[in-house]
This record gives sequence, structure tokens and C-alpha cells, in this order.
Amino acid sequence: MRVLVTGAGGFLGRGLAHALADRLGALARLVLTDVAFGGATPPGAETIEGDLGDASFLEDLLGPGFDLVFHLASLPGALAEQAPELGYRVNLTAPLEFARGLAATRRRARLVFASSIAVYGDLAGRTVTEATALDPLLSYGAHKRMTEIFLSDMTRRGELSAISLRFPGLVARPPTQSGHGSAFMSLIFHKIAGGEAYECPVPAEASCWWMSRKAAVNALVHAAALSPTSPAIVQPPVLHGTVGDAAAAIERVTGRRALIEWGDDAHLTRLFGAMPPLEAGASLRLGFSADADMDALAHAAFEGDLS
Amino acid sequence: MRVLVTGAGGFLGRGLAHALADRLGALARLVLTDVAFGGATPPGAETIEGDLGDASFLEDLLGPGFDLVFHLASLPGALAEQAPELGYRVNLTAPLEFARGLAATRRRARLVFASSIAVYGDLAGRTVTEATALDPLLSYGAHKRMTEIFLSDMTRRGELSAISLRFPGLVARPPTQSGHGSAFMSLIFHKIAGGEAYECPVPAEASCWWMSRKAAVNALVHAAALSPTSPAIVQPPVLHGTVGDAAAAIERVTGRRALIEWGDDAHLTRLFGAMPPLEAGASLRLGFSADADMDALAHAAFEGDLS
Repeated sequence: MRVLVTGAGGFLGRGLAHALADRLGALARLVLTDVAFGGATPPGAETIEGDLGDASFLEDLLGPGFDLVFHLASLPGALAEQAPELGYRVNLTAPLEFARGLAATRRRARLVFASSIAVYGDLAGRTVTEATALDPLLSYGAHKRMTEIFLSDMTRRGELSAISLRFPGLVARPPTQSGHGSAFMSLIFHKIAGGEAYECPVPAEASCWWMSRKAAVNALVHAAALSPTSPAIVQPPVLHGTVGDAAAAIERVTGRRALIEWGDDAHLTRLFGAMPPLEAGASLRLGFSADADMDALAHAAFEGDLS
Repeated sequence: MRVLVTGAGGFLGRGLAHALADRLGALARLVLTDVAFGGATPPGAETIEGDLGDASFLEDLLGPGFDLVFHLASLPGALAEQAPELGYRVNLTAPLEFARGLAATRRRARLVFASSIAVYGDLAGRTVTEATALDPLLSYGAHKRMTEIFLSDMTRRGELSAISLRFPGLVARPPTQSGHGSAFMSLIFHKIAGGEAYECPVPAEASCWWMSRKAAVNALVHAAALSPTSPAIVQPPVLHGTVGDAAAAIERVTGRRALIEWGDDAHLTRLFGAMPPLEAGASLRLGFSADADMDALAHAAFEGDLS
């Protein structure tokens, strides 16, 4: 069995690569790709550096064929807004051409695509269900939604067996990472843990959807093994809570006192801090699960290599 | 003022080109493009043959800049299902690159995009409103929906002023045209008018959304002049009725007797003959209108050059 992870040098990719190496061991050939790898990669995994938007690199990469692929590579939403050409290439044409290339080498390969809750757009005041209308506010979300539609259509035609998972901002991303509009959701963990003062851009009452990298990795691995007849697009369950709740949990878990000045950035609050309840019954029935509570989230957020 | 129509050699494109030539006269430079032009084009219009998927052709075409563009070029749904590579190129990458090329030559150019009711997918038993969830059943509809999202996002970013109109199968297309799964909706007009027997693939009770080419041309022209702040995606009003109702109206208008054997093709009925009512209040308030009734539809269907 051959398994590929794209974006494997990123925050979620590193977590997934280590989890796959642990679980699969010698049972599978694990290939990791990204434009560059900063830190250590799991022993036994093959790493290939390159740009998925380069047609000849893509052909070489996919040539040997893969049974299971996790496509995580993407340009964060705030960066993509600033660099629309790069966003178009990384977040739209690359995944479409990647999916076509994969299907050309092996029909019905399993493809797990990291989509985003950015596909929803403005959710203020609505409970999110399977039937929630989608109206992305950012190019990032528009491109993710277009890719979801494209992969579902390829799956319908029997060319791939794809599943798209809509992730919220994951915590706790390394404090050095920028480009995510939801960066404040991770920074609050690092600042409190480090005993540093923090000017949070949104108010304490801002309600977010929370997920640890550990929960996201579990969701990806779980999605890989689902029946090809299960839904092609899944909203995994998330933890719904305010930034203030999160800060309190981080205080309890770290034993540190939060030194936070709450802000009122209306744009960021609208995008990430006005999240309504999620009706995730369908994904719970499929076996997906969220971080249990805020304290469990805070514990998970500090687990593993946060570099 | 410079105006461009793509797909101008097609059924809708020919109707639009003549209407624009009549209305604009010498006030605007009208450029028509398509892979080939079969019949007569309006006097004064410039025709340019070429493939929009060819990057250098596209650059030359858009180079002089346009204030208003109607993008009608597409591969019909049933043909696109049979030729997925061609469908991908014509129905997805060509419109995306076209929109990017247009925005690169002139910011906020007005782009009217002919989308399709194929974006909805399975509608049986639902009333269609603004909030209807979209789950296309065919690649054609998936690609149209992806293009709508892309154009809305470009409009949000101020790169274009785009509006997408979702058209049903138009009547009466020339009987020689194939590739539309909804071809039966046009054939029934030609067969009854010609006094020929017809094996209709769907039952008389199949309920469809009807629109004449004349109504579609009016909708395109109306959309062009709407404020850029009006909605970026519009479902124009349609005439909702059964194929049996249409046959009766064609009998009345032509004075011929229908010689029809009704079929029961479940696939075609699901795609085109199980259409629910449409709640089109929003587009009616924007000034769009449907064919008045079945007799008006039948009259309009026989108007103009049907070759």
C-alpha cells in the first residue's frame, strides 16, 4: 500500500505524517511532499520537495500510483487574499490538477481533502447543519468550495473516491506561523503559556469553532477508512466556545494567569468569532469526534512538537 | 463601448447577437466569437473564430478591452458527460481563464455568465428558493457552479462586475442540435409543427422549467444593465408546466395534432422532468420576467431563425 501526504511540512501535515508512520509502520510506503521541510520527518517516510503547481513535478510524484492520498497543501486564507495569483494557483488549480493526475494513474484512489469552514461564509445567527447554504467570504473559502464540488463530481463519475473534511482553525499553531486570519486562536495559547501579555483582536465573547491538531489528525485517519459510499463532504464535529472560555481553560491547564487585552476587530470577529452552534449529528454517526471539552482542547493543544 | 459575446454561433448566442445589433446599432462595437459560425451574423458585428481554451487566442481576443461581455460558450451537459476532458476544458478552465484575462485588461468590466439550473441537482419534491442547497448531478452543473463561485469572488474583490444567470433548457433549439439531455423539450415543438410522430422519452406528466430563447435574450440584456451592487447570481423566473401542457399549447398555436408516444426514461425525468415550483420573487423584483404562459412560449419558440 502506498500513501501520500501533500503539505506534509505544515502544522497539520507534520502531525498526520507522524501519526501515519506510527500506525502504518512497515505495512505501507509513506511518501511526504511539500515545497520544503523544516523539521524532522518520521523515520521510514520518503520526503520529496517540490511544487504541486509544476506539471512535470506532479507527473513524477504521482507516477508510481497511490492507494491513499491526503491533500493538505494550501495557502492560508489571509495570505491568499493578499496574493490572489498565488492563491489561485495553490488553492484552486493545483488541487484540481492534482486530483486529475491521481485519477489518471489509478482509478478510485482514496483522496482525503482538507477543506475549510471558510466555505460557509457569514454564519452569524444561524445553526449550521447539512443544509446550510454556502457563500464564502474569502477567495480561500471559494477555492475550497470549488474543489469540494470538483472532487464530489469526480467521485460520482468513479474516477476517485474522495472525501472533503471542513476544518476550523486548528490550535495551537506555532506562533511563528502567519497568514491565517484565525491566528489569534493559536496565539492565545502560546501567550498565556509563556506568561506574556496579549492584545487579542476579538472580544472575550467571540465564539469560535475549536479543534486541536490531534482531533484533526484523528478525523483525517478516520475519513481515510470510511466506505467509499459514505458522504463525499463531511463537517467534522467541533468544540463550540468563546475565546474567554478558551483562555480560562488555558489558565487551568498551564497554571498561568492570562494577561489579555480584548479587542473588537469587527472583520475578524465576523469571520472567526461569530460562529453559531453546529448540528454535527451526521458526522458523529459516521464516527467522527471533537475535542471533549475546553480543558481537553488545551491539553491537546500543548501536546507534541509545536515548532 | 465595446461588447463581446462568446458562444455567439450557438442557439442562444445567435439570438443575443441579433438583439444586441438591433439595440446598440452604431453606439457600440459588437464582437462575436465562437469556434465556428454556421449562419449569418448581424451586419456591423465583427466575428472572430477561435478556441477560448487557447491562451494566445484568448489574449489576442481580450487585448483591446471590453466594457461588457456575455460569456455563453459551453459544451452541453450530455456531451460533457461523454467527453469529460473536453467538458473540463470548455466548461471549467476556459471560463475561469476568460474571467481572469478580462479582469487583467479592464477592472470591473461587466460580465454576464450563462449558468444553468443544472447547478441545483436533484430537485424533486422541493420548492426552489434563494436558499435551495446546490448539489449538481452532472459535471456540467458542477463546473457551472464552480464558475459562479469564482465569478462572485472576483466581483467581491472588485476585479469584475459579474452576474450569473441560471437558465433552463431553452426552446425551441434546432432539431439538429444534440448533446443536450433536455433535447426532448425542443424536439416536441418541431415534431408537432412538422406533423411527425414523436417518441417522447419522458411521460406527459413530467414537469419542466420552460424558457424561450427570446425570454433568455431579454434576461441577458436586462442583467447587463443592472447595478453592480445587485446580486451576483440570479435565478430568472421560468414557466413551470408539464410536457403534456406544452404539447397542448403547441397544438393550439400550430393547429396541428400531436402524435406523441410518451416514454418513461427515469434518468431524464429525474434530471429535467421532476422540476418543482420556483419561488422567483427576488428576480421578479429585479425586473426579470418569464414567458407569460404556454401559448406565449409556443409562439416565441417558433419566432426567428430556428436553424
